[in-house]
Amino acid sequence: MALGEFELIAKYFSRPVARRDVLLGVGDDAALLEVPAGQVLVAATDTLVEGRHFLPGAPPESVGHQALAVNLSDLAAMGAAPAWALLSLSLPSSEPAWLEGFARGLHALAERTGVALVGGDTVRGPRVITMQVLGLVPAALALRRAGARPGDGVYVSGTLGDAAAGLELLRGAGGGASDADSPLVRRYQFAEPRLELGIALRAIAGAAMDVSDGLLGDLGKLCAASGVGALVQLERLPLSAALVARFDAATAERLALGGGDDYELVFTVPPSARRRLETALADGVSITRIGEIVSGNGVRCLRDGRPVDAEIAGYDHFAG
Amino acid sequence: MALGEFELIAKYFSRPVARRDVLLGVGDDAALLEVPAGQVLVAATDTLVEGRHFLPGAPPESVGHQALAVNLSDLAAMGAAPAWALLSLSLPSSEPAWLEGFARGLHALAERTGVALVGGDTVRGPRVITMQVLGLVPAALALRRAGARPGDGVYVSGTLGDAAAGLELLRGAGGGASDADSPLVRRYQFAEPRLELGIALRAIAGAAMDVSDGLLGDLGKLCAASGVGALVQLERLPLSAALVARFDAATAERLALGGGDDYELVFTVPPSARRRLETALADGVSITRIGEIVSGNGVRCLRDGRPVDAEIAGYDHFAG
Repeated sequence: MALGEFELIAKYFSRPVARRDVLLGVGDDAALLEVPAGQVLVAATDTLVEGRHFLPGAPPESVGHQALAVNLSDLAAMGAAPAWALLSLSLPSSEPAWLEGFARGLHALAERTGVALVGGDTVRGPRVITMQVLGLVPAALALRRAGARPGDGVYVSGTLGDAAAGLELLRGAGGGASDADSPLVRRYQFAEPRLELGIALRAIAGAAMDVSDGLLGDLGKLCAASGVGALVQLERLPLSAALVARFDAATAERLALGGGDDYELVFTVPPSARRRLETALADGVSITRIGEIVSGNGVRCLRDGRPVDAEIAGYDHFAG
Repeated sequence: MALGEFELIAKYFSRPVARRDVLLGVGDDAALLEVPAGQVLVAATDTLVEGRHFLPGAPPESVGHQALAVNLSDLAAMGAAPAWALLSLSLPSSEPAWLEGFARGLHALAERTGVALVGGDTVRGPRVITMQVLGLVPAALALRRAGARPGDGVYVSGTLGDAAAGLELLRGAGGGASDADSPLVRRYQFAEPRLELGIALRAIAGAAMDVSDGLLGDLGKLCAASGVGALVQLERLPLSAALVARFDAATAERLALGGGDDYELVFTVPPSARRRLETALADGVSITRIGEIVSGNGVRCLRDGRPVDAEIAGYDHFAG
């Protein structure tokens, strides 16, 4: 049964808005949103293409989660608090079962993170999903890529490589039917944007970005933006028990250095802020110091203090 | 030659930003934008799919224009001043010639309307373009769909049906090779968002929206949002000389009532504001009173005062 566009939007994406700063939400030509005094707007957008950013046949709930999560991760990387989102959905047909799952995954994350879905567009076409998120941060406290200085420590949150490992399992690299239940697969499908960490780092981190395309590539971009280089100590890479149990050491390291989709934060902390870092994060997500910022440029890897050739480039959408 | 994603973005879409309220533009995880005191944020998004919203082989410059124009039209319909935009571009390959044309069309309109492109995403996939625009308006002056009252006049800007006629010519309905130069085709490819009119209507119009899917359907949505009905006098529909010269009267009327893509504004004006309307628009785009708001619901058409059965529904993306 084909639903009309507007009926479809109303059915799956119109929910009572719990934020008072939404003066007008879904249903007019545009949304009206109130930005509080003392805050600046933080705006990001990310697109998911079926077969490229999620597998054909992926659980629609995971696609809905992912569409919002990858965008919220950009806000986390800026130290912003999320506020509002818009959704553009291109779908081959209205597919109620798919839409219901997609909306469930999206709304669950939106509710948990305090995001109001305030508008969007729904068109018939290939399965391509674009979300835009808007967040808030006091201007002086926003985290940027350009603030790293020689002597700063380089940190990452959580563990790295799990999502890429999950993707390999889904693609059949593992071969086991039970892999669908692996925590690695769940990590790929339901990565958690590090919003609380981003906010906690506001007065602490010199520079920050999220690891969406792979640690080496993303840290390389942070270094380029800051005009510095970085040394990464490979033995310090935080690897999950699930990753180490399922893959050999060389593969685990490759996934941790080059795999995307973890949506952890990589950030730098100057020596003067190190004590505040420990205090701020006492109860939060784990963080690991993996190296340091140096003068020069590029990211170099060390193992037990000795240089290692790491020819692993970041994921590049058009260079492939 | 395949360009890397970031090189591509930098090449075509990074331009010096002329707005002081852009604290951070393209190149970080998100943009940082300053909303002035006394203004609320107006946010809209629209997606274009090749073969559905623009023809395969359409001049890339027109696609770049259209991607921004359809979004700016939503801001115009709210009475908002445009400020910032984000672009999500899914393309089968990096295609420098296409990107160059697309960027030229987009930047030309952005510069003319004072819009800064502050971020985006570029992915490999089917040709799907999503833009998000952010504008500003004093909260109390925003134009909504829900403000129409019985007795208000119903107005439209410019002329109707031209873009739909242009699309028919491009599809070969006209058959003439010279049609590519028709002002109707140009109107379809380079529709002009009515931003100045929207701002001029701030303290005047009771309700407003843009005509993106066809007058009858869109006016129907405005009426539904306001809980009223409307009468439209067919002999008052503003038709361009080009439309009347190229199509017979019945076709011209059908295109004016049901054709999309004109991006004119349809709006209502209470009797008390009619004089202010004339003053405000002395030097601007033409407007035409085409009918009035009545109690009840739905849109009815009259010809020379007598009811006419107009079974022309608005364009519905999923009902087709």
